[in-house]
Amino acid sequence: MTASTGRRGVGRRPGGPDTRGEILRASRESFAQKGFSATSMRAVAREAGVDAALVHHYFASKDELFIEAMAIPVDPRQIAARIVDGPQDEIGRRIATIFLGIWESPEGRQRMTAIFRSVVTSDEVARLMREGITQMIIGPVSKTLDVPDAQLRVTLVATQLIGAAMARYLVGLEPVASVDLATLIDRLAPVLQLHLTG
Amino acid sequence: MTASTGRRGVGRRPGGPDTRGEILRASRESFAQKGFSATSMRAVAREAGVDAALVHHYFASKDELFIEAMAIPVDPRQIAARIVDGPQDEIGRRIATIFLGIWESPEGRQRMTAIFRSVVTSDEVARLMREGITQMIIGPVSKTLDVPDAQLRVTLVATQLIGAAMARYLVGLEPVASVDLATLIDRLAPVLQLHLTG
Repeated sequence: MTASTGRRGVGRRPGGPDTRGEILRASRESFAQKGFSATSMRAVAREAGVDAALVHHYFASKDELFIEAMAIPVDPRQIAARIVDGPQDEIGRRIATIFLGIWESPEGRQRMTAIFRSVVTSDEVARLMREGITQMIIGPVSKTLDVPDAQLRVTLVATQLIGAAMARYLVGLEPVASVDLATLIDRLAPVLQLHLTG
Repeated sequence: MTASTGRRGVGRRPGGPDTRGEILRASRESFAQKGFSATSMRAVAREAGVDAALVHHYFASKDELFIEAMAIPVDPRQIAARIVDGPQDEIGRRIATIFLGIWESPEGRQRMTAIFRSVVTSDEVARLMREGITQMIIGPVSKTLDVPDAQLRVTLVATQLIGAAMARYLVGLEPVASVDLATLIDRLAPVLQLHLTG
């Protein structure tokens, strides 16, 4: 674990190592590789090199650990604001660009992979994500759209994005998996737009 | 296991019970609930009420058991034939109707859920399904389409279908999860058509 030790050294602050950060990093790796159900607090502690009691000290439950570990650096409400900011007839392109941009960064891909693997295998995580996405993204975006059935439309956009991410990043279905990003955005933009305002 | 015993009694042929069928039934339940990685040949044997050696007698590997258990009653090539049979400007609607029709039947839903859970958690199953879908559906349908980039277009259709199924049947994302089937087909048909011939 040379890389990890190195990173811990760099991140160490006076007074002690960043134990909480190490636990989050270890849990993200496990959630991404094994999903929520197969990840245990004990295994995360072992991987982070800390006592299991410390994991419970920082995080009351596996639910809480998951939510903290998955927290994206950007506030979801800021994402919703970026989506609705601009001409309504280009909203499909903005959504495709923002969503795929998250997946194309290594850190974003690890978190999104962990979320997808966990959602599919755990009813608990499915419920958490369902509620989170609805409240923080689908709801706000729906409210700004001046169309009937706005919530259904925005959720249909979510289905296209979910499927595109599954095929490109998790299943490796060709040619979607290796087509260049600009082409993929060009293909998805009019389809998302049709869902939203067609 | 009253139901199972009853079914076994009904299905019993002279000369012995349908052991192979029982093993397949038990494996489908396990693949659907736990996915490919968390399903063991030993646990399937226990659930089917047979000796583990018998499972290995009928199925050389877990791969083989999965392929046999997931085999849909209809030949995938027949599905490809039904998709391309008809006017090209209604192909989006035919695809949505056929695909969602499989998910709406209880048996179809169990098999598809098992496939989705397993694809996301096992690189091995992801490879199997990727190759199978490409050879048996995406390839044949692409060949009949008189458009440039046919294979990319058909694969993009697959991404929309994958995401719609995830949201409706696995994650329960509202309102897509509970909207009536006819409405969902009406919404997906023009989007799939745009992917294919737009």
